Amino acid sequence: MGTVPLLDDDVLAPGARAVFGDIRATRGTDYINNFWRALAYDPATLEAVWSRLKHDMAPGSLDPLTKELVYIAVSTANGCSYCIHSHTAAAKAKGMTPEMHAEFVAVIGMAMQTNGLVQALGVEVDAEFRA
Amino acid sequence: MGTVPLLDDDVLAPGARAVFGDIRATRGTDYINNFWRALAYDPATLEAVWSRLKHDMAPGSLDPLTKELVYIAVSTANGCSYCIHSHTAAAKAKGMTPEMHAEFVAVIGMAMQTNGLVQALGVEVDAEFRA
Amino acid sequence: MGTVPLLDDDVLAPGARAVFGDIRATRGTDYINNFWRALAYDPATLEAVWSRLKHDMAPGSLDPLTKELVYIAVSTANGCSYCIHSHTAAAKAKGMTPEMHAEFVAVIGMAMQTNGLVQALGVEVDAEFRA
Amino acid sequence: MGTVPLLDDDVLAPGARAVFGDIRATRGTDYINNFWRALAYDPATLEAVWSRLKHDMAPGSLDPLTKELVYIAVSTANGCSYCIHSHTAAAKAKGMTPEMHAEFVAVIGMAMQTNGLVQALGVEVDAEFRA
Amino acid sequence: MGTVPLLDDDVLAPGARAVFGDIRATRGTDYINNFWRALAYDPATLEAVWSRLKHDMAPGSLDPLTKELVYIAVSTANGCSYCIHSHTAAAKAKGMTPEMHAEFVAVIGMAMQTNGLVQALGVEVDAEFRA
Amino acid sequence: MGTVPLLDDDVLAPGARAVFGDIRATRGTDYINNFWRALAYDPATLEAVWSRLKHDMAPGSLDPLTKELVYIAVSTANGCSYCIHSHTAAAKAKGMTPEMHAEFVAVIGMAMQTNGLVQALGVEVDAEFRA
Repeated sequence: MGTVPLLDDDVLAPGARAVFGDIRATRGTDYINNFWRALAYDPATLEAVWSRLKHDMAPGSLDPLTKELVYIAVSTANGCSYCIHSHTAAAKAKGMTPEMHAEFVAVIGMAMQTNGLVQALGVEVDAEFRA
Repeated sequence: MGTVPLLDDDVLAPGARAVFGDIRATRGTDYINNFWRALAYDPATLEAVWSRLKHDMAPGSLDPLTKELVYIAVSTANGCSYCIHSHTAAAKAKGMTPEMHAEFVAVIGMAMQTNGLVQALGVEVDAEFRA
Repeated sequence: MGTVPLLDDDVLAPGARAVFGDIRATRGTDYINNFWRALAYDPATLEAVWSRLKHDMAPGSLDPLTKELVYIAVSTANGCSYCIHSHTAAAKAKGMTPEMHAEFVAVIGMAMQTNGLVQALGVEVDAEFRA
Repeated sequence: MGTVPLLDDDVLAPGARAVFGDIRATRGTDYINNFWRALAYDPATLEAVWSRLKHDMAPGSLDPLTKELVYIAVSTANGCSYCIHSHTAAAKAKGMTPEMHAEFVAVIGMAMQTNGLVQALGVEVDAEFRA
Repeated sequence: MGTVPLLDDDVLAPGARAVFGDIRATRGTDYINNFWRALAYDPATLEAVWSRLKHDMAPGSLDPLTKELVYIAVSTANGCSYCIHSHTAAAKAKGMTPEMHAEFVAVIGMAMQTNGLVQALGVEVDAEFRA
Repeated sequence: MGTVPLLDDDVLAPGARAVFGDIRATRGTDYINNFWRALAYDPATLEAVWSRLKHDMAPGSLDPLTKELVYIAVSTANGCSYCIHSHTAAAKAKGMTPEMHAEFVAVIGMAMQTNGLVQALGVEVDAEFRA
């Protein structure tokens, strides 16, 4: 599928070529996954997304694996199969064990379930929960 | 709002009363939030959801705060305002600092953005990402 | 809230007035709920939606209560609070008992949960399930 | 695709083996669909989900076919293709005729449409609809 | 995949045949895409959807290309891959250039991102924004 | 509601103060809406989101009003009430007439409806639609 072509290295605009170089240097691999090859048709957005992603997913007060789990959780609720697959692979590369994966998926299921129950019951936010 | 009434303690069925007791004992507070008071109209589901939630959110190979973040991430993508508020309060109670909250929210925004880009571009899953 | 005003009877365009008349006659009540008063700013769409809704929700090979449950289920997954409230009221008016409501809500929760598990695990459709 | 492998019978943990046995006995077929083979990597969640699903989808004040329709409706709004396919097959097995399927799908479409209209117009819940 | 068969021209009911004729005449092509062939199992809904779609997507105070972009934007947030692909093809046929496509996709990503930020932060609607 | 406080001008960090100044200069108004006051707790993300939003929503090969419509369409499918209200106000300020609003909302409803039909029927993407 795809609504735009996946661009090979030899047809990249200079701005996209620079981003691919930074992806490779940052990740320590020559492999560029399909998302970036699709987004490369728009070098300005490619650069903006990559630079912000690199910043937001880096170690901070939250560790990179936790950030991957948050990312996958959002992607699961949105049904973005590509994002689930690519970031589950990233989470495994960052140390997610099968036990952690199992617990993580169970929490997603629990959140989905209670989201549905809350919405169907029309529960109002407790005053105690407001900042 | 609400499609069912929020039940006060004095009208609970025995099964619901027992669950409320366990919620109070587990959390060390007398406060029962609206979700449980709404779900109390169905004691069997109340018991099943509470017992599974208690199990899934407990410390394991993932710590409880990480599980809260995953929970909020799913709830945000689903637009469940109640769930976002109640579990953000829980995350703060479990040690989420303002810095962690800020990083967490930024990752949610990044995941939402790339979910949209991936879907609009129709990107196919790389063979490398399949288990 | 609202991005358009809710129109009172005395400012309706003729096409909207006719639809309001049919809603009242069909439902046997003078009450017009907010959705129709909001949509009345566009009489053509009001007429198209009402006439189709009246057709699709009428008794057929599925009974009207079952159709209301399907409607609420979709609205819950979409997080449309207005739709959940209005159609839960309709379902009660069409005979949904508290027991049925409780079972219904539990099924919604189960579907939400397994939707999340399936997406997170990236499960492929069995060949057996394709028409 | 898939973020976990689909487990064959000969590699199941004892807990998963027991659940597979109960699925086969309950359904009267030897066939185990992919969802359970994926979830089998986590026997505790497999057991919890299966036992609750068996309970919630069983005949009660709502009949099993109505419950399947509710399930599919949620799955459709969530875009869970696997769930739509597996439960549509289940609904057909439980007596859903082509006429019922057509009416059901039309109601889903109507709910989706009005969900969108309501959200875009920002319609507030009528006081009449609150429990 | 598919939960209903895609109907060939020679098995269409008369009502569906008429709609296919109008699709061909309106679009000036003999090609009927899969959506209509799937929906043809329900001629009444096929007719209702096609006639309304033809009306709503026609030139009006908004031009047809703008309407296609709105359509794709909704479909992207809903994760409807079929709809994204079919209407992106339609948008290209109606004059969407690669530059327009890139800007459009960037706006989708921005909207997704801020939707997530707003929901996670629980921001209340400013009084200034209410109609 | 809210999971973070809305910051007043006199408690802003320098980075947030600078962004507020640019929002005011760009929009030609002193008013800062709630979203930015909530996001101000994280000056780095505030700056990144505002600068990218200003870029992506500016005139380009698509005009600013079209971009607002795309934005609202995404927000509607995601059920982000805040975003719908704030960008509908922006669209009106950029020239959206009541007639355009009506047509726009009708297209959203049509897209939502066909998204649901397509997902429920499990329609596969035509080879003709792939880039």
